[in-house]
Amino acid sequence: MIDKLIRKIEENKAPIVVGLDPMLSYIPDHVKEAAYKEKGETLAGAAEAIWQFNKAIVDSTYDLIPAVKPQIAMYEQFGIEGLIAFKKTVDYCKEKGLVVIGDIKRGDIGSTSAAYAMGHLGKVQVGNNSFYGFDEDFVTVNPYLGSDGVVPFIDVCKEEKKGLFILVKTSNPSSGEFQDQLIDGKPLYELVGEKVAQWGELHMGSEYSYIGAVVGATYPEMGKILRKIMPKTYILVPGYGAQGGKAEDLVHYFNKDGLGAIVNSSRGIIAAYKQEAYAKFGQTAYPDASRQAVIDMREDIMSALVNAGK
Amino acid sequence: MIDKLIRKIEENKAPIVVGLDPMLSYIPDHVKEAAYKEKGETLAGAAEAIWQFNKAIVDSTYDLIPAVKPQIAMYEQFGIEGLIAFKKTVDYCKEKGLVVIGDIKRGDIGSTSAAYAMGHLGKVQVGNNSFYGFDEDFVTVNPYLGSDGVVPFIDVCKEEKKGLFILVKTSNPSSGEFQDQLIDGKPLYELVGEKVAQWGELHMGSEYSYIGAVVGATYPEMGKILRKIMPKTYILVPGYGAQGGKAEDLVHYFNKDGLGAIVNSSRGIIAAYKQEAYAKFGQTAYPDASRQAVIDMREDIMSALVNAGK
Repeated sequence: MIDKLIRKIEENKAPIVVGLDPMLSYIPDHVKEAAYKEKGETLAGAAEAIWQFNKAIVDSTYDLIPAVKPQIAMYEQFGIEGLIAFKKTVDYCKEKGLVVIGDIKRGDIGSTSAAYAMGHLGKVQVGNNSFYGFDEDFVTVNPYLGSDGVVPFIDVCKEEKKGLFILVKTSNPSSGEFQDQLIDGKPLYELVGEKVAQWGELHMGSEYSYIGAVVGATYPEMGKILRKIMPKTYILVPGYGAQGGKAEDLVHYFNKDGLGAIVNSSRGIIAAYKQEAYAKFGQTAYPDASRQAVIDMREDIMSALVNAGK
Repeated sequence: MIDKLIRKIEENKAPIVVGLDPMLSYIPDHVKEAAYKEKGETLAGAAEAIWQFNKAIVDSTYDLIPAVKPQIAMYEQFGIEGLIAFKKTVDYCKEKGLVVIGDIKRGDIGSTSAAYAMGHLGKVQVGNNSFYGFDEDFVTVNPYLGSDGVVPFIDVCKEEKKGLFILVKTSNPSSGEFQDQLIDGKPLYELVGEKVAQWGELHMGSEYSYIGAVVGATYPEMGKILRKIMPKTYILVPGYGAQGGKAEDLVHYFNKDGLGAIVNSSRGIIAAYKQEAYAKFGQTAYPDASRQAVIDMREDIMSALVNAGK
């Protein structure tokens, strides 16, 4: 799956991923009204609005992008109905040939991590049958519990030829509270980065490992160091755009081969129609605004890479 | 809700919580067969087996215990159907007057943590209506992202008079890989413990904070230190029994008032009928085996507390 992701990045000349993190406030009124008319102002109505919103954005962008990253929390907030919309979104994106990164940030003790891994990446056995639960291609994992919370995910990834992105340095303002603490003069995120590189050796693709890392766009100096610590690790970079990360800073997350990183934008793409730059599209043509935002983001990042000689 | 939890612990003389973490392998054949007969060897069949299994154990133990802790991963592995069984379990336990601790170990950047908090503890707004998603009383939270990943949970807890248990030192063998790393001579888990004590001040009950901590039974020396660092924090203690934690070690997690900790057992209670000590009950009377295991666990912990003068 890491090879498929890289192939799609190269084909599309787009090391970008669209974060399908729909807040109800991002969804145009006409989409919500239609959904509420059908299913009421209920959890099912909200889920329907999210699903219709996602579908239109995917239809309008799938030929330009390699991957999407639905953030499960945005669905889980609507309970079971929300999770049904999550599953529909995952399935639809896969039908469209997209790589799906489930942003689930799970992680627990061994047997529990194994259950999450089966539910999101692998199959679960019921009597003589086996079933995929959510069936994403990659998921994000929290490393706080250490190796025995991570390796059960890797075991399932090996079986299914799927992958992970493990949190190393997150994009949020207070990520440094624990992650930047110095251990023998070295910050915790570097220690986690070293571990990710080691875990990566357990499950290698052709050039890069199936076991990737999450490093926020908002900390480019740290990204530069982590790039060196984890040379074979694909880095998923959240925090571009709305959170403040800039393309010229992001070149440090890439290797000299122009690969090694994939940059996420959520709000900047899916709620593009709300920005001044795309206001001309209007609410009704929000999928066209998202398409234009993808084109602009790709151009922004690709020219920064060219300028940096990558 | 922390006051309710403490009141129920005192009424039942039982600082214990039953972990409703049903693996299919724990469920007696006759329960699985009945469920599969009704719904097939499918995800829905597995979910039905889990629900019937849980219900019988709850019916047989609810008058002895203050709380249950369903581990959501064990449900999530069966996809949507599994999560429906999780929700049914949460609702049923609350009907029975039990405090429900959702063991979800979520945690993300601010807006995403807010979505998880709304989905699991609070209400989500849809048009003019608001709805509870999963509606647990407490949830567990992973602190790796720092304050801005935790405070959105606390905000919802304040609104709903609900609480958290934040991972400090987990019970698994490799928890020390990151959690024990020394920062200025002090392990990371102590730093997290200090933060939990601070966060706790944001949302106090009468004697204890609504913001608790998770400290594994398998590390009693660390439990002793953390008890001092977080005097007003309720400690949720996993790892008793099957994972190796012993009652005499657990007294260090309690304060002199005999309060301050609640000990979890999952497999040891829900799969008691599989242990030699309870084999006499047989598969069919598995709920009676669980009831006896609860009585024995309560006796084990209460006499250790009495011996320790707590």
